[in-house]
Amino acid sequence: MTPGSDLTQAIARYAVGSRFDALPQEVQREAARAFLNWIGVAIGGCHEPAPTLAARFVAEKGNKPSAAVIGHDVRTDVASAAFVNCIASSVLAYDDAHLPTVAHPSGPAASALFALAQSQIVPGEEFLNALALGIEIQCRIANMLVHPPSPMNPSFYVNGFSGPIGVAAAVGRILGLNQQRMAWAIGIAASQASGFRAVHGTMTSHFRPGYASQSGTAAALLARHGFDCIDNALEADGGFVDVYAAGSDPGRALEGLGQHHEMLANRYKPYPCGIVIHPVIDACQEIRAKLPPAARIAEVRLRVNPLVLALTGKRAPRTPLESHVSVSHWAAVSLLQASPGLAATRPTCLHDPLIVRLRDQIQTAGSPEIGKGEAIAKVTLADGAVLNAHVVDARGSQARPMTDAELEAKFFELTRPKLPAKAAEKLRDTCWRVAKSADVGNDIGGHLP
Amino acid sequence: MTPGSDLTQAIARYAVGSRFDALPQEVQREAARAFLNWIGVAIGGCHEPAPTLAARFVAEKGNKPSAAVIGHDVRTDVASAAFVNCIASSVLAYDDAHLPTVAHPSGPAASALFALAQSQIVPGEEFLNALALGIEIQCRIANMLVHPPSPMNPSFYVNGFSGPIGVAAAVGRILGLNQQRMAWAIGIAASQASGFRAVHGTMTSHFRPGYASQSGTAAALLARHGFDCIDNALEADGGFVDVYAAGSDPGRALEGLGQHHEMLANRYKPYPCGIVIHPVIDACQEIRAKLPPAARIAEVRLRVNPLVLALTGKRAPRTPLESHVSVSHWAAVSLLQASPGLAATRPTCLHDPLIVRLRDQIQTAGSPEIGKGEAIAKVTLADGAVLNAHVVDARGSQARPMTDAELEAKFFELTRPKLPAKAAEKLRDTCWRVAKSADVGNDIGGHLP
Repeated sequence: MTPGSDLTQAIARYAVGSRFDALPQEVQREAARAFLNWIGVAIGGCHEPAPTLAARFVAEKGNKPSAAVIGHDVRTDVASAAFVNCIASSVLAYDDAHLPTVAHPSGPAASALFALAQSQIVPGEEFLNALALGIEIQCRIANMLVHPPSPMNPSFYVNGFSGPIGVAAAVGRILGLNQQRMAWAIGIAASQASGFRAVHGTMTSHFRPGYASQSGTAAALLARHGFDCIDNALEADGGFVDVYAAGSDPGRALEGLGQHHEMLANRYKPYPCGIVIHPVIDACQEIRAKLPPAARIAEVRLRVNPLVLALTGKRAPRTPLESHVSVSHWAAVSLLQASPGLAATRPTCLHDPLIVRLRDQIQTAGSPEIGKGEAIAKVTLADGAVLNAHVVDARGSQARPMTDAELEAKFFELTRPKLPAKAAEKLRDTCWRVAKSADVGNDIGGHLP
Repeated sequence: MTPGSDLTQAIARYAVGSRFDALPQEVQREAARAFLNWIGVAIGGCHEPAPTLAARFVAEKGNKPSAAVIGHDVRTDVASAAFVNCIASSVLAYDDAHLPTVAHPSGPAASALFALAQSQIVPGEEFLNALALGIEIQCRIANMLVHPPSPMNPSFYVNGFSGPIGVAAAVGRILGLNQQRMAWAIGIAASQASGFRAVHGTMTSHFRPGYASQSGTAAALLARHGFDCIDNALEADGGFVDVYAAGSDPGRALEGLGQHHEMLANRYKPYPCGIVIHPVIDACQEIRAKLPPAARIAEVRLRVNPLVLALTGKRAPRTPLESHVSVSHWAAVSLLQASPGLAATRPTCLHDPLIVRLRDQIQTAGSPEIGKGEAIAKVTLADGAVLNAHVVDARGSQARPMTDAELEAKFFELTRPKLPAKAAEKLRDTCWRVAKSADVGNDIGGHLP
């Protein structure tokens, strides 16, 4: 059998058989880290305009109060709560990223599972197993879609394609679907795959992961009722792979499944912007540290992977959402300010004349020989002095993953405006202990804003 | 300006400005016919497995009882009711079809509007205007996607692409969106476009139009709250047209907009199966009428458009859903039975040994010179006699549209098992008078099963 020729069933089989105690300890631990990171960023983002408007939209439905919309006085059905909370966790562009594919897998999976865990009792180990599973499947589908020989148009937004499938597997696992229904869930999810990057910089960019979370959840809930699909929706003639990425390698999605854990390549963001910008931030921060007092910058030249310009080439961001896709904005901020964070996405910073002037001076060139985690910065001062920085592995990358302490600091930065300090500490502790929880929805739900 | 270079705004502008009294009388009338046809087929299909399972899924959500799920003791939110009722209206494959694109535009639009009309007062003229608009936009988007020079993969299911956009326009019109928000609604809808034909023959095939109805509705409801998108999602670099059909002609979608009404090319199905099968049914019925008593059929040769085999080549259908995509099944039934209808899709007929034997004998050849509405049948009898039929325009086609009387007969065939005769007659009368209704949801809602 050609590797991948049974893609749908192979994923369904793996999902149905997945167990927390069979996962390597580092995967178990990484799932807890992903959860802590997710809940921090979901709380941090919950009052932004996009999730606030989405919360109003779901509140109108008046659904059964199964699950909380974080930060809003709204409880709704599982899929709708997953939708809004995932928008909240996505909207600051501060979530996570699987650098090989630039997918953001935690949000759709964690939002769906956390909503489900409020409508039924889900023990911590089952929760973390499903979370690891949902992230794993998303990373693997994304690898198949993004890498050669896949011809998939890079203008597609990969989260809208990998997201529903991974979420369906994760939710289906908690629901206890058998392999047949799991395969249908995956098929129903795949038939909702969609999204393109052109909407980036607007709320609809965050609608996509939210919708991936919702549609994967709905797929699993429908399949549980016996709503059917073909058994091989991913690899069928004219099916998912065929229409979006004919010629890609489905075997890639299954390589070492159960042995190699691709979710370990998923990383948490140290900066609230597109992950491909991060090496530039580090390089500019390195130069900033070397700038003489009152130095006047005459020229800034960046060399980056071509993807950086393709994804984050917005020259003059006008809104927080646009700031996420502006490498020149972040370069300017990182040359002028220490430890740039959420404040860099706010209008005060976006329209700060000093930032705007420097931003317009940034010259960025893409070179394929520069890696996605790499950046070279060269700054020339008015007096002719030249400062160089070459970042090979950005902060937060596979080679320099965020430590638990850094994750906690990020968690507190995000939750501080929403939760009293004591409450935030309690929530952090509960997250770290989530594997031991007998009822995740109840244990965590009580600590939300 | 190149035609179509402002596609999103042009559609938004047209939608916002559309008015019932500005529509030609035949368009006004066709909207009422589409509504009568839709409600009949939604009632007829409501208890099939797919909508029944979907109704259970939405009932679990426990949403506010804004709108009825037809035939089930479930009321739910507008988008969820649209979802289930559209599955019901699709599941018998007896709805309608825009033959140039094989799209089925009434279901997504009517299901969404009817659900909305139960949550707010919608007068009949506004309702029919929005229905005509929703159908019109779907037909036009489908024309752009399906016809040369569009390179769109024919394995994509066009309803999943044209559907959300047309529904967003129709629902957005009733909600009174301004042009800006209408364009956002169209963008949010476009970013949910998806679906492939490989799932045909399963419930997920009907999930797609249902989901188109739901996602277009959600897009308009979100945009009403100010949830934003780019202003040109359809034609943007890397946007909808670019990722799905780069090189297609966006001008095609706008050609004569407001003058030429493409919705008049949408037709109601006289037979419950894929529209491309219909000419074959007519040809076989023609031959059946000429068969001598006790004739024994030795050979059946069909010549059809190649699309017929691509879309409906299922040789041995095992379920009602598979029967919809089996040209050989319908050819066999149509040679052996008068006026084939819903009974031909039922297991008794699918497993009837006489039908099965004849079905296996059908030889079908595709020729590009045969039109999509055309079929040639040649039947050789055991005694050597040869019978021929050549159908150029199938029943229900543009050249032979179903009359009002035929539509009513179809309506009664579909509603008979669900409604007492008097109630069905009352519902028919109310549908024909819908333009005069002050409150469509209330006037029609009271007559549902």
